[in-house]
Amino acid sequence: MCQLLGMNCNVPTDICFSFEGFSARGGKTDHHSDGWGIAFFEGKGCRLFLDEKPAIASPVAELVRRYPIHSTHVIAHIRKATQGEVALHNCHPFRRELWGRYWVFAHNGNLPDFDPENQRFFQPVGNTDSEKAFCVILETLRRNFPDGKPTLEKLYPVLRKITENLNSIGDFNYLLSDGEHFFAHCSTKLSYIVRQAPFAAAHLIDQDMTVDFQEVTTERDRVAVIATTPLTDNEVWTQIPPGDLLVFQNGFPLSIDERS
Amino acid sequence: MCQLLGMNCNVPTDICFSFEGFSARGGKTDHHSDGWGIAFFEGKGCRLFLDEKPAIASPVAELVRRYPIHSTHVIAHIRKATQGEVALHNCHPFRRELWGRYWVFAHNGNLPDFDPENQRFFQPVGNTDSEKAFCVILETLRRNFPDGKPTLEKLYPVLRKITENLNSIGDFNYLLSDGEHFFAHCSTKLSYIVRQAPFAAAHLIDQDMTVDFQEVTTERDRVAVIATTPLTDNEVWTQIPPGDLLVFQNGFPLSIDERS
Repeated sequence: MCQLLGMNCNVPTDICFSFEGFSARGGKTDHHSDGWGIAFFEGKGCRLFLDEKPAIASPVAELVRRYPIHSTHVIAHIRKATQGEVALHNCHPFRRELWGRYWVFAHNGNLPDFDPENQRFFQPVGNTDSEKAFCVILETLRRNFPDGKPTLEKLYPVLRKITENLNSIGDFNYLLSDGEHFFAHCSTKLSYIVRQAPFAAAHLIDQDMTVDFQEVTTERDRVAVIATTPLTDNEVWTQIPPGDLLVFQNGFPLSIDERS
Repeated sequence: MCQLLGMNCNVPTDICFSFEGFSARGGKTDHHSDGWGIAFFEGKGCRLFLDEKPAIASPVAELVRRYPIHSTHVIAHIRKATQGEVALHNCHPFRRELWGRYWVFAHNGNLPDFDPENQRFFQPVGNTDSEKAFCVILETLRRNFPDGKPTLEKLYPVLRKITENLNSIGDFNYLLSDGEHFFAHCSTKLSYIVRQAPFAAAHLIDQDMTVDFQEVTTERDRVAVIATTPLTDNEVWTQIPPGDLLVFQNGFPLSIDERS
């Protein structure tokens, strides 16, 4: 299994603090040491850092921990290989272009014996169940909306339906974003926290590190952090109910009425 | 205009020395300071580092200069914006998936008033002529070979034809690779050098730096470096004749008989 980390904010924010704790799970406080990756959206642009080395030993992860990249949509992943060998081409997040936008996807779980028919548009480069599932998602979206990205109202039920189908095969927690919308699906385990004014101090579980968010934020900032398991031990995280597909926007999950 | 740097080798090699000189042109010894990028293939996997900052001021470029990533196919680019604003989504190299392989593309030149019809499979995310041209190339390849990657013998004439069409619009120097084949097209300016035993010392033009390749290579290593203009001042670089589309393999350009 693997672990997921996501961030969605109303203003570009760096993820250094959360990534510090998260990346410690890549070989130090936990055993997810078969590679890692992180994607940052900056407008329509997208930076993707990947490494098949454990996150705690990777010079690229060191850069991400130290260099504050400001982004509104971030997806990160540390890998414990279940399907597919330890290799760069099997590191999450995966990225493809659809409708003139980059789409980024990371998966936690396992889809046993998952062997979808060859897709017409999107083909996996590696050999993980996760990348195959990502290709199925994009393929289905493209087939349903060949002319361009639809409204969230139209997109959401189609994505929910594909997600349910894939989730019936096995564990299928995932984060998915195109830099505009941010989707988080809980199959078995996924939590989130929304930080907003009044901000307080937060202390990491995986490292003895505290940040007082009051010192580094303004009153209107709002940041949602989504993770397989909570990253801090002095805040209340919300567990997403299994089967729920949340849509985050401006640092907050949309209500059911807003998303469909 | 921009500058291109490519490397193709028979064994995975780091590009630190060449990138040191090349990246100095991104704001220090030359004025290509509107962003940069570099892609490294490792098998079918591909790492892509991008930054809209000048290469000489980018912490990500600093990582690439210092951290020896070993690869057989590398494409790098420093940008002087002609079309499209300075932004991450307009930084080269661009990457897409075709036939279950990543394809990476970087362009030096300018295609004035280039406005291809909306493509069916591949759509640009940014607004450069370069990314549009890349989409046209992939679209045409896919349309000609819908069932998968053909042999080089079949692929080469189709790629040459698209290249000639695009080159008739404007300056179209480019590097293109899928981690297996490495294409280099000279429209106006592109040079290369092949380093192999007996290796000697090389001295950069843009930095006072020398590497004695004899100390860091084995007898069977062969490395081709391709660049808009030569990177060293004590070696003989070969200028690619305008109109030529070379294919590099194992650190050497294939002959006309081998490629078509």
